[in-house]
Amino acid sequence: MSDERKLTSQAEDFAAWYNEVVLRAELADYSPVRGSMVIRPWGYGIWERMQGALDDMFKATGHENAYFPLLIPMSFIEKEKEHIAGFAPELAVVTHAGGKELEEPLAIRPTSETVILEMYAKWVQSYRDLPILLNQWANVMRWEMRTRLFLRTAEFLWQEGHTAHATEAEAREHTIRMLGVYRTFMEDWIAMPPVTGLKSESEKFAGAVETFGCEALMKDGKALQAGTSHFLGQNFARASGLTFQSEAGTEEYAWSTSWGVSTRLVGGMVMTHGDDAGLIVPPRLAPTQVVVIPIYRNDEERSATEAKAREVEARLRDAGVRVKLDARDHLSPGAKYYEWERKGLPLRVEVGPKDLEKGSLALARRFFPEGEKRKLFLPEGEAIASIPDRLEAMQAALLAAAVARREESSYRGVRDWGEMREILETRGGFVYTGWSGDPAVEERAKEEMKATIRCMPDPEFRSDTAPTRCISGEGEARHEVVWARAY
Amino acid sequence: MSDERKLTSQAEDFAAWYNEVVLRAELADYSPVRGSMVIRPWGYGIWERMQGALDDMFKATGHENAYFPLLIPMSFIEKEKEHIAGFAPELAVVTHAGGKELEEPLAIRPTSETVILEMYAKWVQSYRDLPILLNQWANVMRWEMRTRLFLRTAEFLWQEGHTAHATEAEAREHTIRMLGVYRTFMEDWIAMPPVTGLKSESEKFAGAVETFGCEALMKDGKALQAGTSHFLGQNFARASGLTFQSEAGTEEYAWSTSWGVSTRLVGGMVMTHGDDAGLIVPPRLAPTQVVVIPIYRNDEERSATEAKAREVEARLRDAGVRVKLDARDHLSPGAKYYEWERKGLPLRVEVGPKDLEKGSLALARRFFPEGEKRKLFLPEGEAIASIPDRLEAMQAALLAAAVARREESSYRGVRDWGEMREILETRGGFVYTGWSGDPAVEERAKEEMKATIRCMPDPEFRSDTAPTRCISGEGEARHEVVWARAY
Repeated sequence: MSDERKLTSQAEDFAAWYNEVVLRAELADYSPVRGSMVIRPWGYGIWERMQGALDDMFKATGHENAYFPLLIPMSFIEKEKEHIAGFAPELAVVTHAGGKELEEPLAIRPTSETVILEMYAKWVQSYRDLPILLNQWANVMRWEMRTRLFLRTAEFLWQEGHTAHATEAEAREHTIRMLGVYRTFMEDWIAMPPVTGLKSESEKFAGAVETFGCEALMKDGKALQAGTSHFLGQNFARASGLTFQSEAGTEEYAWSTSWGVSTRLVGGMVMTHGDDAGLIVPPRLAPTQVVVIPIYRNDEERSATEAKAREVEARLRDAGVRVKLDARDHLSPGAKYYEWERKGLPLRVEVGPKDLEKGSLALARRFFPEGEKRKLFLPEGEAIASIPDRLEAMQAALLAAAVARREESSYRGVRDWGEMREILETRGGFVYTGWSGDPAVEERAKEEMKATIRCMPDPEFRSDTAPTRCISGEGEARHEVVWARAY
Repeated sequence: MSDERKLTSQAEDFAAWYNEVVLRAELADYSPVRGSMVIRPWGYGIWERMQGALDDMFKATGHENAYFPLLIPMSFIEKEKEHIAGFAPELAVVTHAGGKELEEPLAIRPTSETVILEMYAKWVQSYRDLPILLNQWANVMRWEMRTRLFLRTAEFLWQEGHTAHATEAEAREHTIRMLGVYRTFMEDWIAMPPVTGLKSESEKFAGAVETFGCEALMKDGKALQAGTSHFLGQNFARASGLTFQSEAGTEEYAWSTSWGVSTRLVGGMVMTHGDDAGLIVPPRLAPTQVVVIPIYRNDEERSATEAKAREVEARLRDAGVRVKLDARDHLSPGAKYYEWERKGLPLRVEVGPKDLEKGSLALARRFFPEGEKRKLFLPEGEAIASIPDRLEAMQAALLAAAVARREESSYRGVRDWGEMREILETRGGFVYTGWSGDPAVEERAKEEMKATIRCMPDPEFRSDTAPTRCISGEGEARHEVVWARAY
């Protein structure tokens, strides 16, 4: 693919822009298998950083990792009625193995509640064995009709946490705790501030009692469901026979939760921060944060600027910066700038012959405050010393910009159906309204404006004045809800 | 499962001992899916430590991680003739997905050469795009008839490195480099010293030009193939059309390598170090290295010893030790000792009322030099300060013991077929002999003594005097080889 072609602009065609950025930033590529993608090193490196941060947070909240089978007997998935109804259309099924037809077909896991709780039932006897707090990093498969790189693929990578508790209260509390972990992670690492809240019945996980979600606003005004945390009640425990002897000596079903985020988050990062020059990767997620580029016109200059560039690289590495020297000789500096900008690398250090003379360095920032210039020319020592703080400042600025964008695109106190439609059809964003709780209103919105209730927002996101009437015009508002078109 | 039942001894029935240790140390459990296991937190924690160490070593040798599809079209696997012949009997095949029969069946990857090189073919145009050095952490599936926890399961976790190079010499060099990385890892982390060398034609990877292996000796005298590194020549590049324009302007096929280790290594660790009390986990691999156990008879003693135990825990954590306080009140200290010994945790610190009076601590070591006692009573400060060094010393002692065991069970200069059989049938171990290169000799050994050529050992493992005659009695020795019964 030529480096030189311009990207489609976001304004022109956001969907085309997204695909081009993902492909040309080398985050991912189409594979020869329908609906499955290849995650390339730059994309996988970002996912690894997400994994590392989440894994630390899971361990800090008492979880351990484990691994459960990829293949699940169909009879297991069928145990929980709502669950199988929800997932049956998306299953990929192994019917033959080892040269023979299997007696019972095996589904590739679309999620692992059924097999994991079956194991918990084997391990748990008494209340002393609870809670069980496990997480699994795994691939899962959901055979989707229309796929989009990272956002909706047949196979994707994710983590799924599965916990079992002795009491309903503890399980409910854990569901909310993990929703909070997700929110903190999305804010602190992806700089993607979600609205959190309870899903409506029609949008909840198949088999859950309640689903809570993180809804992030993308730059095109559409919502991305970026993570969910489910309170499963005793539904899966009943289906799997997960009982325990309580402290009082009675036999009871355990209460369970599950929660997951996936490689979809990489797509969310792209659509939260990217611009017409390509990707912008928040510094905490960038596999490489700083690239050092020597500039030269002849061999003498090359050896001088490369030596200095190597020195800068070493000093930044010592300062804990993830840094790389780009000494490729067959590319011009301009071609390198273009490539790293498109890949969203946070900061570029240029070392040219004039910089050597002056003892200065040029820093070019991928994201910078409005009104400032992209490039800063600073004395060498000051430039290097300032870089760790600049990266943290960029991380904070990306979050602040995303929060501001979300708030600008949040429409509160909307009371008129036509107004809601006008907003969603022309500007996009989050529309806050009252809702009676009637699913027919959701159906109508889906048909008329392709919008859904993203959630009943948690208290801090609710409007100062609670809506009193349902947006449909019929009935009182039982909830405030957030509407949006969604990925 | 009751904590109190004694393990079968190694001498009595090594295979039964192995299964009991894996289950009762809670490394893994049988799953409801035939041939697939569940890796429990203690086992997965060990695997995570292995992953971390290997991943660092891969990155230090220039590799990046990526992710490729789980499902591979059958037509891809069929492209390389030896490859499909080798893997066809073990494939698990998806025939239905999304409620429909697929036009082309998809195999769950048994390994990913075919799909990965297909992508490389898309990405590589010129010699400047080479080498490509990628690694993937993934699950794979090989439908085995007889399975054993960790050692041979239908689904297993592994890493597979796949590299493509412009020249044969560079690819060969890389194959050997990664074999060396594996050997260093196995020695330094698992304390499991392998013999390395070239595999015979009959034992090489399906589709490789040459396969090199790490062969480790288990405590029952059998060999475990613990890792392999393959020089694939241009075989897979031809099958996938992976060509590049050389510096001279010609169109050429790339040269590729692949190499992998899997969760099988956890089984190797068990059979290298375990004893009749259960597992022994080398300190560098132990998810928790030290457990601190308060001892008390009443509430007053409990609050005093728990407070001290908490202090010891904090000081060890500050010293970089992975430490855990076991404050469970419903278990006696003895039950805790038994549990952690069985799990192979390296070091236990006991804090009792008498220790408080004396200002001392008791250290109980899971593995200790012959002639010493398991428990040491030391002044508190000295005890704590010495623990990091003791852990490193234990790591070194485990390796030394494993090397000594391997050497004691290595029989060199064996010239007589009957002698080889006698050794392999009664004592087990590695038998070094001459070999003419005739595959019929391998066939005969397999039939008569269930033994195979594990490898043609690398120079440093070879006998001082090279054998001159083939062990079969017929023909000259073209190679020195190592025979063993193997897992």
